[in-house]
Amino acid sequence: MKTDGLSINLATVRQQFDLKAGVEACLRHGITAISPWRDHIQTTGVAEAARIIRSNGVRVTGYCRGGLFAALDAPGRQAAIDDNKKMIDEAATIGADCIIVIGGGLPQGSRDIAAARGMFFDGMAAVLPHARACKVPLAIEALHPMYAADRGCISTLAEALDLCDALGKGTGVVIDPYHLWWDPDLAAQIARARSRILAHHICDWLVPTKDLLLDRGMMGDGVIDLPAIRRMVEDAGFHGHQEVEIFSAENWWKRPGDEVLKTCVERYNTVC
Amino acid sequence: MKTDGLSINLATVRQQFDLKAGVEACLRHGITAISPWRDHIQTTGVAEAARIIRSNGVRVTGYCRGGLFAALDAPGRQAAIDDNKKMIDEAATIGADCIIVIGGGLPQGSRDIAAARGMFFDGMAAVLPHARACKVPLAIEALHPMYAADRGCISTLAEALDLCDALGKGTGVVIDPYHLWWDPDLAAQIARARSRILAHHICDWLVPTKDLLLDRGMMGDGVIDLPAIRRMVEDAGFHGHQEVEIFSAENWWKRPGDEVLKTCVERYNTVC
Repeated sequence: MKTDGLSINLATVRQQFDLKAGVEACLRHGITAISPWRDHIQTTGVAEAARIIRSNGVRVTGYCRGGLFAALDAPGRQAAIDDNKKMIDEAATIGADCIIVIGGGLPQGSRDIAAARGMFFDGMAAVLPHARACKVPLAIEALHPMYAADRGCISTLAEALDLCDALGKGTGVVIDPYHLWWDPDLAAQIARARSRILAHHICDWLVPTKDLLLDRGMMGDGVIDLPAIRRMVEDAGFHGHQEVEIFSAENWWKRPGDEVLKTCVERYNTVC
Repeated sequence: MKTDGLSINLATVRQQFDLKAGVEACLRHGITAISPWRDHIQTTGVAEAARIIRSNGVRVTGYCRGGLFAALDAPGRQAAIDDNKKMIDEAATIGADCIIVIGGGLPQGSRDIAAARGMFFDGMAAVLPHARACKVPLAIEALHPMYAADRGCISTLAEALDLCDALGKGTGVVIDPYHLWWDPDLAAQIARARSRILAHHICDWLVPTKDLLLDRGMMGDGVIDLPAIRRMVEDAGFHGHQEVEIFSAENWWKRPGDEVLKTCVERYNTVC
């Protein structure tokens, strides 16, 4: 079965594999692209992570996840900016195609989502010169509106693209159907995104969804018309990897990692 | 404390009171407006429900909930249309200000949300002449995008207003901050809504939210800036009731109904 164009976000096998084991498992299944999270890299050590990635010849389609700039006070915001700059250095070292950045939630006690969005913009503007210097694009991921309070206050692709318009070179967007599939404006916004599409994530929306965060579905097990969204993405000019990202505490995280990867390959060939 | 302008959606005390007990409990707390659900009316009987409502002099700020027109086949869609017409008759009999209509989810096995949205439009168009004849406005409620698959495929206020534009006289919208608070376009769309605002629901978004449907919060316990949204609604020209609608399986539905209503009055005075 085809594995060209398939990438595995290592969150999908978070409970089964660390970076090294995850890379080796992907290669067993013919998958040559991954997307690690920060803890994968930091646990392994950045230099050793880069060595594992390079010596195995795997592509890094994204590095998860930065952003989250909103904080109660200026020192908190500065700490987030500094940490994002450090993450940009790590991304350059491991050769990631981009960093995935999310809005972050409201600061503790705040009910001002517009202010949180403003802090996200300011944080992006503060780190962008360093990202450009390191040639690491920042891919803004609009998260599903159910995460607006505590995870990602950037909620629509339109909003993410408005931010790209305002921030300029070095920014782009992630298309993740899990977060965006419901949007009546999706087709128009994907067409608008064009060359700013930096990554394309896939998983599925289960009915019922039992947990807001950790009950995402394998492609084909839910209600998202993934081929339709893939065509929109391709029509917009993006022909990069489809990256499987599934948070599934009660199902896929409990299965053997090789079974999960085998299923990803099968569904990639039959569903996506 | 002030109770003018406060309405109680009886779903808030669904586990505690039927229609008659709910009306009597509201009156004990000085609340003279309610919004019943279909089962409240059908269990009581429409004529008896109308008698209870009239004899107690309570206002009915809405009747929940119609719509849900999407179905797998034509007989299924016709059954939904017929049922909505019956509901319109019931609304006229009990003197409801409007019927709350929601999009409904995808038909079983479908991944075509655009088709479901089309069926909603067609169903609305089919029942609208009857609604106009009975002088019962249909208030479209955009539901939070997390309900798009299985409950309400109309997901944004912009989409609801586009439907009103297309359907014309006899249609309007509900402003429910629970469903809409995250929307970066909210202020502009509420301003656009103007005289089409037919109802204003209130509750709060809890952090964390433990259940997609049944973990809504009492006003003040979550992160929604309710006064800011109320000002938008008033600036758009709506000065009707604020209707408390809280689905809360593990908290408010387990407390004594009078405690719930007392808290609604307190929070209405201090938070909203």
